[in-house]
Amino acid sequence: MTSPQFLSDTARVDEAAIQALPGSRKIYVEGARADIRVPFREISLSPTRTSGQDEENPPLLVYDTSGPYTDPGAKIDLRRGLTELRRQWIEARDDTEFLDGPTSEYGQRRANDPMLAQLRFELTRTPRRGKKGHSVTQLHYARQGIVTPEMEFIAIRENQRRQARSAKYSGTDEVERILDQQHPGQGLGARLPEEITPEFVRYEVAAGRAIIPCNINHPETEPMIIGRNFLVKINGNLGNSAVSSAIEDEVDKMTWGIRWGADTIMDLSTGTNIHETREWIIRNAPVPIGTVPIYQALEKVGGVAEDLTWDIFRDTLIEQAEQGVDYFTIHAGVLLRYVPLTVERVTGIVSRGGSIMAKWCLYHHEESFLYTHFEDICEICKRYDVAFSLGDGLRPGSVADANDAAQFAELETLGELTKIAWQHDVQVMIEGPGHVPMQLIKENMDKQLECCDEAPFYTLGPLTTDIAPGYDHITSGIGAAMIGWYGCAMLCYVTPKEHLGLPNKDDVKTGIITYKIAAHAADLAKGHPAAQRRDNALSKARFEFRWEDQFNLGLDPDTARTYHDETLPKDSAKVAHFCSMCGPKFCSMKISHEVRDHVFKDRWPTGRSSEEDSRETERTRLDGMRDQAGKFRAQGGNLYSEV
Amino acid sequence: MTSPQFLSDTARVDEAAIQALPGSRKIYVEGARADIRVPFREISLSPTRTSGQDEENPPLLVYDTSGPYTDPGAKIDLRRGLTELRRQWIEARDDTEFLDGPTSEYGQRRANDPMLAQLRFELTRTPRRGKKGHSVTQLHYARQGIVTPEMEFIAIRENQRRQARSAKYSGTDEVERILDQQHPGQGLGARLPEEITPEFVRYEVAAGRAIIPCNINHPETEPMIIGRNFLVKINGNLGNSAVSSAIEDEVDKMTWGIRWGADTIMDLSTGTNIHETREWIIRNAPVPIGTVPIYQALEKVGGVAEDLTWDIFRDTLIEQAEQGVDYFTIHAGVLLRYVPLTVERVTGIVSRGGSIMAKWCLYHHEESFLYTHFEDICEICKRYDVAFSLGDGLRPGSVADANDAAQFAELETLGELTKIAWQHDVQVMIEGPGHVPMQLIKENMDKQLECCDEAPFYTLGPLTTDIAPGYDHITSGIGAAMIGWYGCAMLCYVTPKEHLGLPNKDDVKTGIITYKIAAHAADLAKGHPAAQRRDNALSKARFEFRWEDQFNLGLDPDTARTYHDETLPKDSAKVAHFCSMCGPKFCSMKISHEVRDHVFKDRWPTGRSSEEDSRETERTRLDGMRDQAGKFRAQGGNLYSEV
Repeated sequence: MTSPQFLSDTARVDEAAIQALPGSRKIYVEGARADIRVPFREISLSPTRTSGQDEENPPLLVYDTSGPYTDPGAKIDLRRGLTELRRQWIEARDDTEFLDGPTSEYGQRRANDPMLAQLRFELTRTPRRGKKGHSVTQLHYARQGIVTPEMEFIAIRENQRRQARSAKYSGTDEVERILDQQHPGQGLGARLPEEITPEFVRYEVAAGRAIIPCNINHPETEPMIIGRNFLVKINGNLGNSAVSSAIEDEVDKMTWGIRWGADTIMDLSTGTNIHETREWIIRNAPVPIGTVPIYQALEKVGGVAEDLTWDIFRDTLIEQAEQGVDYFTIHAGVLLRYVPLTVERVTGIVSRGGSIMAKWCLYHHEESFLYTHFEDICEICKRYDVAFSLGDGLRPGSVADANDAAQFAELETLGELTKIAWQHDVQVMIEGPGHVPMQLIKENMDKQLECCDEAPFYTLGPLTTDIAPGYDHITSGIGAAMIGWYGCAMLCYVTPKEHLGLPNKDDVKTGIITYKIAAHAADLAKGHPAAQRRDNALSKARFEFRWEDQFNLGLDPDTARTYHDETLPKDSAKVAHFCSMCGPKFCSMKISHEVRDHVFKDRWPTGRSSEEDSRETERTRLDGMRDQAGKFRAQGGNLYSEV
Repeated sequence: MTSPQFLSDTARVDEAAIQALPGSRKIYVEGARADIRVPFREISLSPTRTSGQDEENPPLLVYDTSGPYTDPGAKIDLRRGLTELRRQWIEARDDTEFLDGPTSEYGQRRANDPMLAQLRFELTRTPRRGKKGHSVTQLHYARQGIVTPEMEFIAIRENQRRQARSAKYSGTDEVERILDQQHPGQGLGARLPEEITPEFVRYEVAAGRAIIPCNINHPETEPMIIGRNFLVKINGNLGNSAVSSAIEDEVDKMTWGIRWGADTIMDLSTGTNIHETREWIIRNAPVPIGTVPIYQALEKVGGVAEDLTWDIFRDTLIEQAEQGVDYFTIHAGVLLRYVPLTVERVTGIVSRGGSIMAKWCLYHHEESFLYTHFEDICEICKRYDVAFSLGDGLRPGSVADANDAAQFAELETLGELTKIAWQHDVQVMIEGPGHVPMQLIKENMDKQLECCDEAPFYTLGPLTTDIAPGYDHITSGIGAAMIGWYGCAMLCYVTPKEHLGLPNKDDVKTGIITYKIAAHAADLAKGHPAAQRRDNALSKARFEFRWEDQFNLGLDPDTARTYHDETLPKDSAKVAHFCSMCGPKFCSMKISHEVRDHVFKDRWPTGRSSEEDSRETERTRLDGMRDQAGKFRAQGGNLYSEV
């Protein structure tokens, strides 16, 4: 028999997760105080080649969720966890205290179980809790008029335009003209200021329109915000199940997910060693971690829903709050009287939490402890700053069941619970569907805004059709982009394995990239200031045949490069003025350059005028050509008479 | 030296393309006359297991683009081509005549070139042409009040509801209740009758709102229709390029594309042996084939755009029309005066045809021969029934350039050309963008309907963001679903290789499936009668853990099965009431069944009532539970006072 392997000895970071992204480096923008250092990814670009002087392209700053992992200067050791970024901020508020150790019965039992030594993360500090009678939530501070360091951090992080405009990065006027242009958005009620100030962040949090999930026991997290007047966020799910389970795999999925852009991670583990798995994830996560505590509570009662009790659930909440979970999904809107509304559905109840609570309610023929003890749950959450994600236990599991009585009845109850949570200073977002055909998506969004007083909406997809198992990242990506535009604040990803199996690392990446697309498309549609800058930079690179820049500006440089290389692998092809799609003679962009040069030169053919002339002269010529075009239009130039 | 390999000896159909899809068989629905036999794919389903008598699930009929390839009774021989399905219909109209051989100079030259013997498809018949003075277009017949066999074929093909309701396939009332339900669509101006009659098809074609691309020299094609009041269609592109070229590969991409649902195929070849490649494709294609004749014309002048002439182009049109091309992309809307409007764009002109014509116009400083000879082109097309796909040569190549002056100026010209084509009885659709952020998509659709008098719109995507090279099937699938809902008739697929390289067979499949999703999501949103039936059947299978049925009802059964088997490969898992995502204890659907049984039984826990009781009794119990739920609601049941 070999000696036991201790995870605290063997845990190693996934090498693939700590490489810098191609052409990129981590930079930090400092806030008003030196301990506010907001991470960005800076993508370096090559100059635009002309025969005269090359024209610089300013680097592009992009929002970066990957934490210290992509910082070569950071020392990553999964066994030690991440630096406590927010420790001083929390302490300076002087409204929390360290406990002697876990106060939950289960947390204590796990801590003292020698059989778990191999699996345990060696946490050297004890948990923190708000002092008696204190709310330690960002909502509480916001309402007091306090701008927290978290809020200032977020203001810098969300401010794409201000970052882009900082003198250091600006290009020439012509380059800036191209990069800075943006179509007016259609906000549909969103209010997107040109510049996001710390005060604006505070105002939105105080109004309940945005949340900052940041448990005081997760000081490692980099503050982020979820709200319709900010960038649309995405969540990635992971977690073991009874069928597949390994702590290292789940940590790897987390570091992999944030590398590609997950703004938060939900640990949905339902297998073995849930407590220990979660500890490893939280200690190493620079993003907020969400959970569905009822899953673990159900494990504690051997999977028998009707054996669940308030005491077991309460102990689970405290256990998880003291580990540092940043938001809890609570299915408190599943009321007994709503359950029969699901009976004639095509797919019944498809939320795990929803079905568990429905079963409990029916068995006991009373309202669930989540609903009857909702104020007690608030009392717990406010002392750790755990935000609510009020679960949609009755969400539709098929387009047939979309927008039905059960779904909307629950949504109304979630609106009621939102107000109660706010009374207790607890931050709230609302979970949403599910499966919804396109023409019914807006009704969902509008009803949520109305029922829940603009508390942030957090939706799964929605899937716009049920007929493509294996491609539900796409069926749902369509719905996600649309509901993001309509006002949804965070999109929960769906992977290609949805409905079929547990996602692996590849599936996680595909799900994340698909949802980054949806979120960004929504930002463009809403008109988030400077959202289009990345599109413009990439399109400019594409038009100028700067292949490497085109890859590196994309959401997934590795895949773009691989696809390009499949047919034209040589390095020389990376500077070629064509690709394998059309070949050299049929490259529209190559021809388009010739056209452009001709227009500038106003004669033909003489080669590239831009290689000979200054931009000043070109501009004069362009004006001339515009006049000429105007003349054409004035003449009519119509070869056919009107019919 | 080995003896030359003749393609007419060696060509073999791709084995992967001729397998029946899992659980499926080809069936034919007969029309009023015996020679109208409309193909469908019938997906067999297993019964729903209960402890009493199993409940049958009627098979589902789905629209089938795969032609004879998936019919085990059909003899497939690429060297012989497909059966001339429409031969009698064309002959019965007595308005066409056989020519002695190709009348184009180029067609004759290729036919007589002994060097090409190895590559040539051995066509045994000569081309057909409309008799002098005759229009042989479906538009012409429709205007005369003639319902052609093609129109009757299409009516049967489009009629999902009528097919579903045929007595042979209907299930019990309860099963039909589940399958037949559908949310009201939001048609946004579409007129979708409950039943599509041949007369409705005629009416829509006569009005120019729909086209039936079916060249008299492509009698092998199975008639299909493109119009906003019919099912949304998708096109798949293929074609060699100077960088990659093999006739067999392109034929394989065609048979592969139609297997997964391509309604039409465009051959965009720009490499060598374009003429011979096209012949092999058309002779073996049961779907309409489109081309961009300017590509081949450019090849004929060695790639020098300014050397293109009307004579070369005219000869190319006749060459292709006599081969059987069903629709031509013609970039006649690129006017000289519009070219300068593209100069300040981020990505200039990105349409190959558009950039070629722009270069020609500038060089000669006159309007292109496509525009000046547009009526001559109509004269050619009407004698073969080649439809127009009026090309959007100035479509935006980046979201920055969307909906700009150049794009909309061209669209107005396309509207003008539409009316001219209609004067000549030539069928027309209009090509559209491109790259468009979500909030600007509807403007495109509305403007097209207005400018082009509801001629069908045929769009590439649109891509809703530029930042995801490698995933542009997804960035564009979002836009495609939306514009399909808004009224677009056909969606041109985009593959993951877009902007990066030439798609291979896998990319073709991914592009097709993504666009089938978009088209179907659009059909649901518009409210196409019975579109939701497939969703309902799949969701019912999912909820009943009929795994094989769930796979087989999906757009890609193979991928769904593979994903499922990755974590739970055993056959027993195919009947398991859970999957690897949640495992047995956390399966919401399993719990949901228990909940449903409890509601039906109105007591707890006793196991599955449905295993003991008749449906009659269950229904009574359901009513009882509804009353109870009503009582709950009446009591208020609110545990918290209003806040």
